[in-house]
Amino acid sequence: MREDLHVAVVGATGAVGIEMLETLEKRNFLIGKLTPLASARSAGKTLPFRGEKIAVQELTNDSFDGVDIALFSAGGGISKEFAPAAVEAGAVVVDNSSAFRMDDSVPLVVPEINAADVARHKGIIANPNCSTIVTVMALYPLHQAFGVKRIFASTYQAVSGSGAMGIAELKRQVGEINEGREVSREVYPHQIAFNVLPHVDVFLDNGYTNEEMKMVHESRKIMGLPDFQASVTCVRVPVYRAHSIAVSAEFEKPVSVERAREAINAAPGIDLNDDVTSNGYPLPLESAGQDNCQIGRIRRDCAMENGLSFWVVGDQLLKGAALNTVQIAEEVAKL
Amino acid sequence: MREDLHVAVVGATGAVGIEMLETLEKRNFLIGKLTPLASARSAGKTLPFRGEKIAVQELTNDSFDGVDIALFSAGGGISKEFAPAAVEAGAVVVDNSSAFRMDDSVPLVVPEINAADVARHKGIIANPNCSTIVTVMALYPLHQAFGVKRIFASTYQAVSGSGAMGIAELKRQVGEINEGREVSREVYPHQIAFNVLPHVDVFLDNGYTNEEMKMVHESRKIMGLPDFQASVTCVRVPVYRAHSIAVSAEFEKPVSVERAREAINAAPGIDLNDDVTSNGYPLPLESAGQDNCQIGRIRRDCAMENGLSFWVVGDQLLKGAALNTVQIAEEVAKL
Repeated sequence: MREDLHVAVVGATGAVGIEMLETLEKRNFLIGKLTPLASARSAGKTLPFRGEKIAVQELTNDSFDGVDIALFSAGGGISKEFAPAAVEAGAVVVDNSSAFRMDDSVPLVVPEINAADVARHKGIIANPNCSTIVTVMALYPLHQAFGVKRIFASTYQAVSGSGAMGIAELKRQVGEINEGREVSREVYPHQIAFNVLPHVDVFLDNGYTNEEMKMVHESRKIMGLPDFQASVTCVRVPVYRAHSIAVSAEFEKPVSVERAREAINAAPGIDLNDDVTSNGYPLPLESAGQDNCQIGRIRRDCAMENGLSFWVVGDQLLKGAALNTVQIAEEVAKL
Repeated sequence: MREDLHVAVVGATGAVGIEMLETLEKRNFLIGKLTPLASARSAGKTLPFRGEKIAVQELTNDSFDGVDIALFSAGGGISKEFAPAAVEAGAVVVDNSSAFRMDDSVPLVVPEINAADVARHKGIIANPNCSTIVTVMALYPLHQAFGVKRIFASTYQAVSGSGAMGIAELKRQVGEINEGREVSREVYPHQIAFNVLPHVDVFLDNGYTNEEMKMVHESRKIMGLPDFQASVTCVRVPVYRAHSIAVSAEFEKPVSVERAREAINAAPGIDLNDDVTSNGYPLPLESAGQDNCQIGRIRRDCAMENGLSFWVVGDQLLKGAALNTVQIAEEVAKL
């Protein structure tokens, strides 16, 4: 393993980019050189990294000379435009956008589940959708125990999923309401403060949103289960940075809550927080800033045989984005 | 039909009680005399009704002399203690608590669905749980079209479900956060501002909460479907007064979105708000203060045959409580 990697972070000044830098530092990723990249608007800003201030450079097709690993989190358009240049320059791209996720030649990886897929990359590895990551972190250990067939799920997604703009929108609207002013909207089509919006990402012809169908398609690819089914309603809620998902899951084999807990306890990256007698269950407020996802409220589903219902929460900016991306980069560094 | 009914409202100063008085006035309920009742603490306060200020009286066993209809919304304990006295005095009790809902001798009524059940009352008629009412308002017309078997549902429940105290808790916490002060908790076991809590009502031995199982048992009784199944996760969200529910429903017969919409359009008390091309779907903020529930996001469920997924929203204080109670009282007045 090389210890002097040159790592570029594309979208370094965004909500996920900032978490990426912090995560690289916290996990002692073996960086010899860090190059934060962003749009011309952000170039020249400095970002803290290992006690230094590092200047943000403008992203261009020439940004990737000598870069070993490029972490992209600046939206699908930027990834489509610049990832080929990064690969051309010899970098391995770990992309947090949806641009390449369903491309057959691109591994889609949650390292706790399918780290081995990293080895078959052809220059680009995709980081899954945030609510999908959090859901499969709970679902996969249960799948290994019981064999998952399908899920019915509803999400409670934080505004951080829309980046720094989403966080700013909720804060601003709360302030406007507090001061009795008219509520302004820039990011969401409706007020998000003191409201919930059953609308994340664009609507598709089948009536589901793109975000909802990602849970179907990306979960299949990550878990290697082409027949997996999911009916999901994705909902934006006025929470700042962790996503919660309520899941009813149907399995092939008979289930038990005790064995489900054992499976979770043996699984990496997810903690059991399930003691309802003392009001213990995962909360987005408490998961914010935490690397591990949390699962609780595990119970036998009362509307299906071989079913379990549960509640899983994970920090959208960390396991849902920056942390998972850095974990993939760690797998790349091992190759 | 008598036009000079003497109506008592028990819990008149609570969040639901206040809505009951407004609803009685708005619907021109045929009241000759109104008696607002509450605890000794609230006695002597006045409440506005038809342009007058009416003094709140202390609730005692002697409060019901001459009362024709008593609307109770002061919690299950008060209902159990005082409803028998009201019935003894000759009043018909419409009870918004859970005290008598599952009693075989007590009709449990959503007038749009089972108004006829009112006629078999023996002194008490129960008003269902708020999230159950909103859910069945959408589900029953679809059941009539396709025959419902089971649902998987997740709720997004407003703090008004915990009464005026819940509303005050969210407001206070937002203010405390805004001022950088420590967040205080009185109603909920965890902070509700900028958080979601998968915990409404008490936990039962099967791992579900009482609120979640109400959706099973009360829906069966209201719709007259003893085999109906429901797996529900009830979640409190930082919204002030309307409940939202994401539902995946399985039916006996083949479904179509078009026929589902026709069924909804023909049903009383629920409006179709389902034009995703213009970001049209029900929102709790817009349903607040509205009598009718709204349904949207109707789509063929992609994880089951004969399934529909949808999103339904209703004002918890109105259709979820005060309005439905007054509608039941209107049915009583017709007897």
